[in-house]
Amino acid sequence: MMFIEHLVIVGVGSIGASVGMGLRRLGLVRRVTGVGRGEKNLKIALQRGAIDDYFLEINSQINTASVILLAVPMGAMRGVLAQIKPFLHADTIITDAGSSKTAVLADVGAIFGDHPCQFVGAHPISGTEKSGAAAAIFDLFDHRRVILTPDAHSTPAAIVLIENMWQALGATVETMSASEHDRILAMTSHLPHMLAYNLVDSLAKCDDVEKMFRYAAGGFRDFTRIASSDPTMWRDICLSNQQAILAALTNYQQDLQLLYQAVADGDAAQLMQIFASAKAARDKFLG
Amino acid sequence: MMFIEHLVIVGVGSIGASVGMGLRRLGLVRRVTGVGRGEKNLKIALQRGAIDDYFLEINSQINTASVILLAVPMGAMRGVLAQIKPFLHADTIITDAGSSKTAVLADVGAIFGDHPCQFVGAHPISGTEKSGAAAAIFDLFDHRRVILTPDAHSTPAAIVLIENMWQALGATVETMSASEHDRILAMTSHLPHMLAYNLVDSLAKCDDVEKMFRYAAGGFRDFTRIASSDPTMWRDICLSNQQAILAALTNYQQDLQLLYQAVADGDAAQLMQIFASAKAARDKFLG
Repeated sequence: MMFIEHLVIVGVGSIGASVGMGLRRLGLVRRVTGVGRGEKNLKIALQRGAIDDYFLEINSQINTASVILLAVPMGAMRGVLAQIKPFLHADTIITDAGSSKTAVLADVGAIFGDHPCQFVGAHPISGTEKSGAAAAIFDLFDHRRVILTPDAHSTPAAIVLIENMWQALGATVETMSASEHDRILAMTSHLPHMLAYNLVDSLAKCDDVEKMFRYAAGGFRDFTRIASSDPTMWRDICLSNQQAILAALTNYQQDLQLLYQAVADGDAAQLMQIFASAKAARDKFLG
Repeated sequence: MMFIEHLVIVGVGSIGASVGMGLRRLGLVRRVTGVGRGEKNLKIALQRGAIDDYFLEINSQINTASVILLAVPMGAMRGVLAQIKPFLHADTIITDAGSSKTAVLADVGAIFGDHPCQFVGAHPISGTEKSGAAAAIFDLFDHRRVILTPDAHSTPAAIVLIENMWQALGATVETMSASEHDRILAMTSHLPHMLAYNLVDSLAKCDDVEKMFRYAAGGFRDFTRIASSDPTMWRDICLSNQQAILAALTNYQQDLQLLYQAVADGDAAQLMQIFASAKAARDKFLG
């Protein structure tokens, strides 16, 4: 039975607060400490039962942590790793919830070098476009997937504990390399976010923007929901998973040019082929 | 009070069958005749109360129609107009539910020329990705928008009747030119469908397609829902609103290239600007 004595969550957004709320409800943690810069958000997390106490900055009082969860935007990871380093014990387990995994390993390498540390990279695929502790849900991870990307820093005991933590929250845990994670997520998550942001931005630049959005109906609303996600988080994902995102975008742009050409040529057979094959794939895999 | 003696619906898909079902429930029509090629679908429409009777082909028995609604894919419009022409009276009102309006007017012009006919183009913006009479919903148009694109063929009495028909079904009716409709819908509906189909098709072509879709989570599912729409319908929309769709695609491709460059350059400020402006627009107009 997994039990965490003291969990420190750095970054008490919708993901971090949902982890705290879920583990506290399940009675699987003795104490959850939140660390964040926004006191208003931390008070909401406290009031909603996601944490037991909080600090506005990393300090020596986190030295009782058994597990430290980094749930900050990708761009803040390296700085936070440097700040927590002085307060770690040999058995303190560090994990994260970032959307790019190769970059987190690079951050760990940059801060810890050959210094031993127990780090297990993880990514809960459970995104919501809503931000902050107010958007936390205690069962956010139930029936969702969590990808672990263990490496040389990950001891078997640490891997088992982090795996059990996510399983306790109802998630299915799978393991792959950081680079495979980044390639798959670039295609299935990062690329769609780029496309949705780009579509809304294109519309917002129209002269008759109000009229455009007036006729943007149900399909458009669903299609662009992910463009209401936190811009800081997505800026950081672009910077941290740059190469895989560029490859996914290039691939997409080439296919889109073929589709453009089919429309320009009035090529009914080619259009039918593209749409029918897409519908068949979606109905098969996501229907 | 609007009342239709005999409504003939050519094409008893989700849109056509929803109109029949709604008007019959409201008691605003004496008889609804469905015309379609699929008898299985027509029997479902009959069973679900969308129509009173049906034919598998246009024939002389539609000559009692007071209103004929064409709810077929865009590519079938011209052929259907030619088939119904012999059975029209001076007061038979023709309307449609097509997603491209300039093309329908061209079809009307090609078939009727200077021959008088009462035609009022209309587009209910209420799409669902589901097809067929089984997907019909009696209140599908409640609180949705319907755009009318009247032209020289549209008598004032015909415009008022079609407007009242959609209003009775709960829709907000607005009027604009066919070309303005096509430009706006290309951006807000046709373009998103192209992007979603293209994304699913890109994923479906990956070597590890099963794995890709396994990690396509909630955001991806919403984002690509419209790619489960009827391929025939969307092939026809591409062919019938070609120029406006090409313009929307070109505009989108240019913006996407700017986004690509911002990722390639690691331009944090530019990425933040694009994502924040998109989020602000979406939250303002669709939040």
